[in-house]
Amino acid sequence: MSGPTLDANTAISAEERQRERDAIFQRCERFLGTHGRPRLRATLEALAREAGEDEADDIYGSGALIEGFEHEIAGLLGKEAAVFMPSGTMAQQIALRIWSERMRCATVAFHPTCHLEIHEEKGYEFLHGLRSRLVGAPHALLTLDNLRGVREPIAALLLELPQREIGGQLPEWDDLVAQTAWAHERGAAAHMDGARLWEAAPYYDKAYAEVAALFDSVYVSFYKGIGGISGAALAGPTDFIAEARIWLRRHGGNLRSLYPYVLAARAGLRERLARFPAYHERAVRIARVLTSIPGIAVTPDPPQTNMMHVYLRGDIEQISDAVVAIARDERVLLFRGLRSTALPGYCMFEISIGDAAEELSDDEIHDYFTRVMAAGSDS
Amino acid sequence: MSGPTLDANTAISAEERQRERDAIFQRCERFLGTHGRPRLRATLEALAREAGEDEADDIYGSGALIEGFEHEIAGLLGKEAAVFMPSGTMAQQIALRIWSERMRCATVAFHPTCHLEIHEEKGYEFLHGLRSRLVGAPHALLTLDNLRGVREPIAALLLELPQREIGGQLPEWDDLVAQTAWAHERGAAAHMDGARLWEAAPYYDKAYAEVAALFDSVYVSFYKGIGGISGAALAGPTDFIAEARIWLRRHGGNLRSLYPYVLAARAGLRERLARFPAYHERAVRIARVLTSIPGIAVTPDPPQTNMMHVYLRGDIEQISDAVVAIARDERVLLFRGLRSTALPGYCMFEISIGDAAEELSDDEIHDYFTRVMAAGSDS
Repeated sequence: MSGPTLDANTAISAEERQRERDAIFQRCERFLGTHGRPRLRATLEALAREAGEDEADDIYGSGALIEGFEHEIAGLLGKEAAVFMPSGTMAQQIALRIWSERMRCATVAFHPTCHLEIHEEKGYEFLHGLRSRLVGAPHALLTLDNLRGVREPIAALLLELPQREIGGQLPEWDDLVAQTAWAHERGAAAHMDGARLWEAAPYYDKAYAEVAALFDSVYVSFYKGIGGISGAALAGPTDFIAEARIWLRRHGGNLRSLYPYVLAARAGLRERLARFPAYHERAVRIARVLTSIPGIAVTPDPPQTNMMHVYLRGDIEQISDAVVAIARDERVLLFRGLRSTALPGYCMFEISIGDAAEELSDDEIHDYFTRVMAAGSDS
Repeated sequence: MSGPTLDANTAISAEERQRERDAIFQRCERFLGTHGRPRLRATLEALAREAGEDEADDIYGSGALIEGFEHEIAGLLGKEAAVFMPSGTMAQQIALRIWSERMRCATVAFHPTCHLEIHEEKGYEFLHGLRSRLVGAPHALLTLDNLRGVREPIAALLLELPQREIGGQLPEWDDLVAQTAWAHERGAAAHMDGARLWEAAPYYDKAYAEVAALFDSVYVSFYKGIGGISGAALAGPTDFIAEARIWLRRHGGNLRSLYPYVLAARAGLRERLARFPAYHERAVRIARVLTSIPGIAVTPDPPQTNMMHVYLRGDIEQISDAVVAIARDERVLLFRGLRSTALPGYCMFEISIGDAAEELSDDEIHDYFTRVMAAGSDS
């Protein structure tokens, strides 16, 4: 490997260290989270097989492939129409902008850990001139009481199902009904950030359309649990989606062709939609294994979807090194993205359970994390 | 084929007619323009071969594949840095927004047929709050005299090379030097819309970096002459590109993975970059064949790139029907997108010459267009 040379103290740069770790992770063969390592060549070969013998490319949003898939998504969500987009960032800014224009109000309400607030460089403000009214505490689900504290007009209320930044928590069904009703009673739209809506199905045990029916517009994603490459859909009333297509063009998301993403989304949906209950069950079992080890806690406990946040007591550097050593020596990747927390002596990671966990037994998971925790308490 | 039923007059709907024509065009085997019909399965199989044995996917803009390609593009254009983006719409709005913020001026100058003005639903205004100062006449290249008429401050001057909406015309080199100098003398940035810059090389007979050196920022595209699927790059100074990455995230263009587009762009560039002089020569020969037929004119004459606008004297419906008949009966697609013009009795189409024209001889082209023109003058 090439890279910056070692400095006088033979300490390597952070960048070089990250590159080395990436290379180690890239060679892993088993994974606790995700659907496994995406292999470009195999993925593209599978897409070629997914393409019908004479399937034509989509051209700027037109064509049987993309229109057929949009129709399928609209049906699944019980909405009149849907539009495929390159990203959820686009889909949600566009949804909120449309509601804002219609309500003649620039204020939208969402949770402090909303994707728009923390992962999009405030595009909603810099591109759309929207203002956010944050609702609820960062570490908890928002409540009807929180909403009742909103005293100003809002164009829309965005609710994320499940809420990723708090481990994939879901409000109880009655709370969801009450919160969306609160928005509607104030003349505001209810928009669903359904980035992981597919993952939420086992918890509510309701059809997707039934959950979506509480909302005026819904965004769903195709590369998280579904395992596609990139891409999202926005669903809602016919006139709303027609307007969204204008904004999509403004955003630069009306691409010449989106077929690699559409094909991957279609294949992933057909392959994995029925598996989410199994992913959830596996996540619950894994949570039980992890919490049986002293110093490990998960949230939510038990997991409500296939994802959870895992808190580890111990030294973050030592834990991280132990995970890298296991990845290097046994080609097993337990997790990535270990982060420090506000609580001294604790670090945490996020994990989503998919196809890959089938390759790891409960006993192996127990053994690996026991080793990791032992390394983390060395000192 | 399914579709709406025939009405009482057995006239079919415009939508149904378009669908029928699309199906006919989809079955064509030879084409005057483009690189031929994209076949999804074959394209995806080729991409799978293009992917290295152990090539890893890009993750939100990081990874050797995308970073390596960006480095290659920056080098080709002689700029410090480049960023791959899903679309040129994004790339150019972002470039102008950055120059606007830096110059503390919301006005940008471009030609009335600029892509931003006519194909992007005015995203520059609706998303970025920019105002356009249009320069020059719609049917002609802009001139230094036109620019001298701009009396107000501008943040940037956008020049499109070649100018698609007037048949792919290119300013003479000295004019280009003078126009970009005009911008710089006024403290404005010069931005190149190089959607078809690859196609312009044979005309200037200069390295791409030499043309790009006149500009502060450059957008290039990978699916037109290059024959990729979608995607663009924005190139410029390091700090400018770092800022562009923030705006890319705001636009929703920082996708989970872009590798299908990057692989197609990389393969297309390697395969076709050296062919543009040949495409241009073929376009010049085709223009000569076409203009030898009474009632046909091309602009520019001779073509300066591989593209041209072709004007046909005759009835638009009859000409269109003749083209469809040839497509249906002989599986040869001469052109699509025939449009009426301001001049009564004339219609026009745009064509770009690529790999596909190799399958058609000059004599065949002459014969087909002679038949089309005969049909158009029937009455």
